[in-house]
Amino acid sequence: MNVHKVITQQAREAKSAALKLALVSAKDKGAALKKMAAALLSQSLAIIKANALDISAGMRSGLSVAMLDRLMLDTDRVRAMADGILDIVKLRDPVGEVLESRQRPNGLRIDKVRVPIGVVGIIYESRPNVTSDCAALCLKAGNAVILRGGKEAVNSNKAIYKVLKGALVGTKIPAEALQFIDLVDRQAVVELLKLDSFVDVIIPRGGESLIRFVAENSLIPVVKHYKGVCHIYVGAKADVKMAEEICFNAKVQRPGVCNAMEKMLVDRKVARKFLPAMAARFRGAAVELRGDEEACRLVGDMKKALPEDWAEEYLDLILTVKIVDGVSQAVDHINRYGSRHSDAIITNDKKAAETFLKEVDASCVYVNASTRFTDGYEFGLGAEVGISTDKLHVRGPMGLEGLTSYKYQIYGNGQVRK
Amino acid sequence: MNVHKVITQQAREAKSAALKLALVSAKDKGAALKKMAAALLSQSLAIIKANALDISAGMRSGLSVAMLDRLMLDTDRVRAMADGILDIVKLRDPVGEVLESRQRPNGLRIDKVRVPIGVVGIIYESRPNVTSDCAALCLKAGNAVILRGGKEAVNSNKAIYKVLKGALVGTKIPAEALQFIDLVDRQAVVELLKLDSFVDVIIPRGGESLIRFVAENSLIPVVKHYKGVCHIYVGAKADVKMAEEICFNAKVQRPGVCNAMEKMLVDRKVARKFLPAMAARFRGAAVELRGDEEACRLVGDMKKALPEDWAEEYLDLILTVKIVDGVSQAVDHINRYGSRHSDAIITNDKKAAETFLKEVDASCVYVNASTRFTDGYEFGLGAEVGISTDKLHVRGPMGLEGLTSYKYQIYGNGQVRK
Repeated sequence: MNVHKVITQQAREAKSAALKLALVSAKDKGAALKKMAAALLSQSLAIIKANALDISAGMRSGLSVAMLDRLMLDTDRVRAMADGILDIVKLRDPVGEVLESRQRPNGLRIDKVRVPIGVVGIIYESRPNVTSDCAALCLKAGNAVILRGGKEAVNSNKAIYKVLKGALVGTKIPAEALQFIDLVDRQAVVELLKLDSFVDVIIPRGGESLIRFVAENSLIPVVKHYKGVCHIYVGAKADVKMAEEICFNAKVQRPGVCNAMEKMLVDRKVARKFLPAMAARFRGAAVELRGDEEACRLVGDMKKALPEDWAEEYLDLILTVKIVDGVSQAVDHINRYGSRHSDAIITNDKKAAETFLKEVDASCVYVNASTRFTDGYEFGLGAEVGISTDKLHVRGPMGLEGLTSYKYQIYGNGQVRK
Repeated sequence: MNVHKVITQQAREAKSAALKLALVSAKDKGAALKKMAAALLSQSLAIIKANALDISAGMRSGLSVAMLDRLMLDTDRVRAMADGILDIVKLRDPVGEVLESRQRPNGLRIDKVRVPIGVVGIIYESRPNVTSDCAALCLKAGNAVILRGGKEAVNSNKAIYKVLKGALVGTKIPAEALQFIDLVDRQAVVELLKLDSFVDVIIPRGGESLIRFVAENSLIPVVKHYKGVCHIYVGAKADVKMAEEICFNAKVQRPGVCNAMEKMLVDRKVARKFLPAMAARFRGAAVELRGDEEACRLVGDMKKALPEDWAEEYLDLILTVKIVDGVSQAVDHINRYGSRHSDAIITNDKKAAETFLKEVDASCVYVNASTRFTDGYEFGLGAEVGISTDKLHVRGPMGLEGLTSYKYQIYGNGQVRK
């Protein structure tokens, strides 16, 4: 089998389907998505059976318990996937919205109209529910989608894909708008990344090395974030009780995600009052603390941070702590070591808050709230296909609107250029 | 001299300056831009002298008369550059605009605020005025800019850059926000394209081979268009007189630009009435016509088009003509061979017009107007830094707003994630 040929054929089918799908009404797309959700429920047994293959392969290959749990599907999880699709059905269809309309002195009317992007490629290594979530979101926004999941979940993903694609038959969404690459060889990804005449955007989701591989090999624009090195700065005028609750939540509630706090900056003015108590609470939750010299002096058993600690994403119960002098020093540190994902200040000083909001160069900057809110659902975008720390097209959570582009439609009555 | 070191240092300076420039007020940016314009006028002699070096080098190396004309600067052209900057000063500053504000049920207020992109790299081979136009546009939008012009214009570009940078001294725009790469070796471009931790976007302007080189070598997101293969479809119900004026304008008024018509599709229903007269008029303007079999039958001395003609951008007085049956066939042809730049339909049939507008997959789709209007000034965007045929971030002319990103600023009062 020629990998190049197979992938090119899939991309070509997707492109051709995308041109048709772009014209399908919101109502017809909704009906098709409902059929997809119903099919997941009625065929959940087949999906769970396929998943069992991945689980036993995972056990043989020594996946961690946490990884196996992420991989595992049961009827509740399949139902959650179906419910996720029904939630997406309810979202407002962004396609066709007139974003701007301008009348030029020469009589031309120039409308800027929201349209689907076209063909979206999603390369992921996450849980199998990503297959149905991303398929539904892309199709709802009028895009064809080419999915390429991780090899640990290939049986589950393939089963979900088959169910969803089968459900599209007989609907107004062309079944070819949904494509799944089942070649586990990485060469398949490399081939896909070269097909810029068929695919309009690539969204990689997974670890930093996957994303770097995609960014380095893609001729197609990529929407991505490498990692989330999120900071919380406890300011000089912080409500220390609030700071403690927020920092604890941002570190401990779910340490393995990209919007969890990885670094805590503490203003020298509150350090004595805040840090020892906070450290005790972290210790109670088994958080390993690493600190700069001053932080170590304030907290007895803190490990000394190494230079590489400041830019590292642990995705674990580890936190690095630094004492800073004022908001400017905090901002400089974050702009130097951060990942432009999500950073917060805890303060009752309005001026410091405004400085922080303006000067921190990140997708999402918070005052007095946990960085854990950086998420499509929490932002009210309905769902997200990923998070971007790039500055182009979309920044922060990428929801339905992030899956659209626009075109100019220009109405004349014979205008020519002088 | 170590190319990597030099370019990295420039990019690092630009990044650091960008963080400061993002906070400069519209008024202060305007004052700095006015100083730039005044400096161009007061030092125009130095610029023209430097330009003479490029002109004589160009003559020695055998540049065409057209190329030499594009390269040449005189006092009028330098004044036009200064006027261009003053026009940019008058544009509304997009930075700081609140694009959306949402209050979440948990009390979080999420503002989506327009911010500069950061550091913009522009790689161009066009006329020296691009140096001042792009510098002014990027700085106005609050971005640092790294310019890399073509080697034919290196003396002119360097002189313009020196004048502009000198003018920034003593203003609120840090002079380091303006960088110019004067190494003519292409290795300098390769180095720049790897610096994704300092540079946020690359905009290449020039021929297809330059743009492909940039797209293939860049780790940084690229906003681009490869070429403009613009179509005009003369529909079955076209006003043939209007069609003739528009097609003539789109082909002849300035054939060397990306929004000029390269292909003309003529509906069979109107071909007899329209094509022979149109062909005669094109012949009068020395336009070489190539056609499919049917077009050749209708027009005596038309050359037969080769398969490669349909996707080629001539940038010259050459036009390929095809007879089509109805709007669907026209749309299919354009979506297959077009470049997603600008395409037009000439028709009095509203339904055909709507079909064409919706179904043609291009940045700018026209009804009854010349494709030559695809341009930042003509669209009322004030000026453009380039044109995009990609679907991400910006599509069509890229003006000031296209040079901005956004960030989320989130206001809480102690919210944590449940």
